[in-house]
Amino acid sequence: MTERLKKQLDFALEIDKEKNIFRQTHLSGHGRNENDAEHAWHMAIMAYLLREYANEEVDISKVMLMCLIHDIVEIDAGDTYAYDAEGLKTQKAREDAAKERIFSLLPDDQKAELTALFDEFDGGQTAESKFARAIDNMQPLILNHSNDGSDWSEHGVTAEQVYTRQGRTKEGSEVLYAETDRIIREHMQKGHLK
Amino acid sequence: MTERLKKQLDFALEIDKEKNIFRQTHLSGHGRNENDAEHAWHMAIMAYLLREYANEEVDISKVMLMCLIHDIVEIDAGDTYAYDAEGLKTQKAREDAAKERIFSLLPDDQKAELTALFDEFDGGQTAESKFARAIDNMQPLILNHSNDGSDWSEHGVTAEQVYTRQGRTKEGSEVLYAETDRIIREHMQKGHLK
Repeated sequence: MTERLKKQLDFALEIDKEKNIFRQTHLSGHGRNENDAEHAWHMAIMAYLLREYANEEVDISKVMLMCLIHDIVEIDAGDTYAYDAEGLKTQKAREDAAKERIFSLLPDDQKAELTALFDEFDGGQTAESKFARAIDNMQPLILNHSNDGSDWSEHGVTAEQVYTRQGRTKEGSEVLYAETDRIIREHMQKGHLK
Repeated sequence: MTERLKKQLDFALEIDKEKNIFRQTHLSGHGRNENDAEHAWHMAIMAYLLREYANEEVDISKVMLMCLIHDIVEIDAGDTYAYDAEGLKTQKAREDAAKERIFSLLPDDQKAELTALFDEFDGGQTAESKFARAIDNMQPLILNHSNDGSDWSEHGVTAEQVYTRQGRTKEGSEVLYAETDRIIREHMQKGHLK
């Protein structure tokens, strides 16, 4: 085995740990908490199937890869809940250290490529990252919607908090944002959101 | 919301169930059983990072999408263990019915596209499907290897059975097959395979 293949397989084994990072979102049918790997898988398929709704033309294979790797840093940094104000303050420092450690397992060229892709997603300035981030919002939304908004009501999340986060969906897809807005309003009416 | 978007989101919600289909493979660190969604996520990233080892040039975004969707039928049909001779007899009929039901949730054009992609993977005749199938073998192999081959030893799997299955890796990647062969021999020597 070459040193290059060894590094690639070491990285492949390391990211297996992402399956043990659990999110606040619950699976449909009032199931267990979802983990990061499942979330990323779901996002990649949704991104592909919903690509016609991206505001700008996107390189969909780039979007899919972005979706697949965007949470790898949480192997070390843990999942930071979107409405956890304290955790959000230290999120960047924790994730930067994780990014350096984990992507350094790869050969240099692939480390550079995946780091750049992660940073692009994180920056949210390109057409691909805006659309990937819209899907990152939409995926837990459809699960939570199917569970009567219980991920919000259990945490006492407010409509204002949800709009602050989900509002960015508009940057990636006006169409998906219109549906997002409809869902949020429904849960406000039903009292699932303060 | 258009009828088209409704169908796409209905499908997106349906495939959430794939996270509840558990495989015989265990996560690294002697962890719990892996589910299909995690397996597919892991495969798609591995396919991307290892694409340089495909025997033939491949459209990697097609390979990744194939990896992501290849187990969706198991939502209805369940996981058939690679070394379960009885289950393998009825696998095709169960999976065909599942394929029809689940992909029919999508708009017709996307149903046709995903069905064709699933069939291409299943047929294993194209460059993309051969490589995707090599990765479908390699991904559980690295987990099992990290766990001292316990997925084999607990089921009393023989080296001959493993070679029959893993032998097809060669069709997609000679390089990955050489590493596969090295790993199998190591576990034979250690007595993890009969």
